[in-house]
Amino acid sequence: MTSEPARSPAENAELALLLEVAGTPKPGNVDRHRDLPDLHFEHFLAGAVGARPGLERAAEGDPVGEAFEAAVSGMATQRGGNTQFGCLLLLVPLVRAAAEGDLSPAGVADVVAATTVDDAVAFYRAAEHVDVAVGDPPTGAEDLDLRRGADAEPAIRERELTLEGLMALSAPADGNAAEWVGGFERTFATAERVLADEGPVTDRAARAFLDLLADRPDTLVTIQHGEAVAREVRERAGAVEDLEQAEALAEEFAAEGINPGTTADLTAAALFVALERGLDV
Amino acid sequence: MTSEPARSPAENAELALLLEVAGTPKPGNVDRHRDLPDLHFEHFLAGAVGARPGLERAAEGDPVGEAFEAAVSGMATQRGGNTQFGCLLLLVPLVRAAAEGDLSPAGVADVVAATTVDDAVAFYRAAEHVDVAVGDPPTGAEDLDLRRGADAEPAIRERELTLEGLMALSAPADGNAAEWVGGFERTFATAERVLADEGPVTDRAARAFLDLLADRPDTLVTIQHGEAVAREVRERAGAVEDLEQAEALAEEFAAEGINPGTTADLTAAALFVALERGLDV
Repeated sequence: MTSEPARSPAENAELALLLEVAGTPKPGNVDRHRDLPDLHFEHFLAGAVGARPGLERAAEGDPVGEAFEAAVSGMATQRGGNTQFGCLLLLVPLVRAAAEGDLSPAGVADVVAATTVDDAVAFYRAAEHVDVAVGDPPTGAEDLDLRRGADAEPAIRERELTLEGLMALSAPADGNAAEWVGGFERTFATAERVLADEGPVTDRAARAFLDLLADRPDTLVTIQHGEAVAREVRERAGAVEDLEQAEALAEEFAAEGINPGTTADLTAAALFVALERGLDV
Repeated sequence: MTSEPARSPAENAELALLLEVAGTPKPGNVDRHRDLPDLHFEHFLAGAVGARPGLERAAEGDPVGEAFEAAVSGMATQRGGNTQFGCLLLLVPLVRAAAEGDLSPAGVADVVAATTVDDAVAFYRAAEHVDVAVGDPPTGAEDLDLRRGADAEPAIRERELTLEGLMALSAPADGNAAEWVGGFERTFATAERVLADEGPVTDRAARAFLDLLADRPDTLVTIQHGEAVAREVRERAGAVEDLEQAEALAEEFAAEGINPGTTADLTAAALFVALERGLDV
């Protein structure tokens, strides 16, 4: 056996997407053993493959917004719809930071701080490729509703809103945006837990998911079912002691239509950081 | 929703690798629901991600042997060992033919006919990256044993053996080599069956695998267990009427250590052709 070259940041990001969806059980999400009614494992495989050119662009130094839009556009070349929009929102700045040689909270904060109004506009264009689940915008910011897509461009430009600024507005209601403006705190902490964990990577992914879900309410669940349900979901995840118990929770969440998708996004981001920091597959 | 760009040949090849391993049940092989003792689903995910740069090189017109070696080298950046050597041997000329705009038996036969002695040498170098299961070489061709790796180079050059010539020598004992020198007949026929089939792509992959296994003895099984076992494996696959019955066969093959890996390689190749011909995921 000869020594093999390491994977590039874009390759690790794609692999993180694949390992995330393979991790099982991840209650309420598509995983190696479960599909959702119109969203299947194979859609995630195709989404990950399609996202890679955009991830490569992030590594090469293209504007973060353009790279994100390219990744989402490629991800959308499958029939399941929105498979990995949130994952990619986290991965794009992390890939950039890794390519620049500083995959740390400070390094990715620099990437976030450097985002522009054009990046924010590109983010809205990206949202036109798939249906993204979002809550209602804050009062006074109706013109920034993500569902407006590229029609929001004049409002973004008038407010001189960068992508960082947009994420700051969204952070209270969106766990991914909170990562963006909080130095990816939960991402880096979870990556270290994954590295310290043992066994197959897909089992570590499932445990990381459960820990994150028990730690804070999933904001996608909040958007879709309200705060009370999201709190209850968090409590139920916290009561799970191992992956075997999580299997039962997975059946329950599937029956109840509970989909903690933001927690899955964070899991993918943490897997990426862990891969960059030497996690062996 | 905007219209999304189609996937490139290299992207479809990587996706074919992922869909192949996700297809379940594929008795005796790693699939979405089964691992082998030291070969896990996650190794195949990492192998597919790592193979892509080599597949891109095949599409870009690099020599077939170099592209194959690059794909295998990238595939080997995981701890499971030989995940997709045989798949890549089939995919590389198919990707080249697709990139040249003629993904047909004649188009891929042209690619095969154009291979050189250098391609054969690169093929042996590729075999140094992982342990490849091969039978003993024919009498009088001991110096061409694949297990010699790059040490076989002088023998290859002395015989002026092209990669096509090498595959012709190997065809009687290796189902993948037989495809190379037979216009990829089973690959194209299976691709058409996959396209005519219905339902999730991963189910179609499993049915394609079973049809192929029932059609001819798997040559990896022959190498590992002998001709009698390979014939029996073929018969048992032929007796399976649906995926539910195949689940039982998967349990049996796992218990018996039967791994019809060449049939899995052919399935991946067929999925690639089907994707290029419009199979929707």
